[in-house]
Amino acid sequence: MAIDLLDDLMEALRCLPGVGPKSSQRMAFHLLERDRKGAARLAATIAQSLEQIGHCSRCRNFSEKDTCHICANDKRDSHILCVVESPADMLAVEQAADYRGLYFVLMGKLSPLDGIGPEELGLDLLDSRFAADEISELILATNPTVEGEATAHFISSLAHKYNIPVTRIAHGVPLGGELEYVDSGTLSRAFSARLKL
Amino acid sequence: MAIDLLDDLMEALRCLPGVGPKSSQRMAFHLLERDRKGAARLAATIAQSLEQIGHCSRCRNFSEKDTCHICANDKRDSHILCVVESPADMLAVEQAADYRGLYFVLMGKLSPLDGIGPEELGLDLLDSRFAADEISELILATNPTVEGEATAHFISSLAHKYNIPVTRIAHGVPLGGELEYVDSGTLSRAFSARLKL
Repeated sequence: MAIDLLDDLMEALRCLPGVGPKSSQRMAFHLLERDRKGAARLAATIAQSLEQIGHCSRCRNFSEKDTCHICANDKRDSHILCVVESPADMLAVEQAADYRGLYFVLMGKLSPLDGIGPEELGLDLLDSRFAADEISELILATNPTVEGEATAHFISSLAHKYNIPVTRIAHGVPLGGELEYVDSGTLSRAFSARLKL
Repeated sequence: MAIDLLDDLMEALRCLPGVGPKSSQRMAFHLLERDRKGAARLAATIAQSLEQIGHCSRCRNFSEKDTCHICANDKRDSHILCVVESPADMLAVEQAADYRGLYFVLMGKLSPLDGIGPEELGLDLLDSRFAADEISELILATNPTVEGEATAHFISSLAHKYNIPVTRIAHGVPLGGELEYVDSGTLSRAFSARLKL
């Protein structure tokens, strides 16, 4: 193809996750052929978002304002803090659980090989919140992966310095899951963390 | 979520084909978190494309200029014309076949129920090309669907008025296909269109 701009458009669309050569071609043709209005809106919204969306100064989540709407909400219990890895995880907790406390979004997980240490995760900010705020419970909701567990362990030891009670979300057989198809790591964890009825 | 702009961004991303709520969320977070440079480029390229990419005045394909690079190419055989439904079909022919003639892109197919008639497909432009150009072969490469066949039939009768020889691409069992798994319509077509060896 020598239509340079169209090529550029297909190439630019490939910066989206999960979009390869075929999808980007389909998207480019769709935008130009069937949804020019949507495309104009998309271009404007991306540009505006890049300009205006930054991070909340308290929880590091994405926010247009200095303090995000959850941190600024008086009705939420400021004594409970839940630590998650990403804004997507935070959204998942918001949608699933009746959680009324505040969040702290790490925007990643400890991964020394990728150069992601405590500073990149804003743990100095978290540390200052531990010192300043009265926290009655710190819930660690990082993912149950090697890095997630390491991150949880690190934050847990940080909280212990301030005598903050720390909990970790439960791991085990998911609802609707069948023991037969659950991986052995999860099953072993479900047995070792069994509860008295 | 009350972060309005982020919501707007997710909503705007859903104008892309095949993107639902989960993907748009993933895309929005990806753009904001990991690829702000790519996102800026995407926004700029979409805006520029909408402004500059129009249709070729000869073949109706997408083009930045009045005449697209294929129509403007002297080395291509201007006596052969291939009619396709969409730019994506044209790209597929370009990539697969050693076709050196020109194209005419319908940007759709006859579909009276959706209000798409001969005018929407630029068949008046095609008619004027039949009258003005010396065409030694018109290849109909519309899709083998009901609408595609109807479109091919319509264009074929248009070409017959000017005594232009018309051909249709072959339909039958695809290479690598197994008779056992080919649908009965295709197989029946393959039998009725059998060639002498």
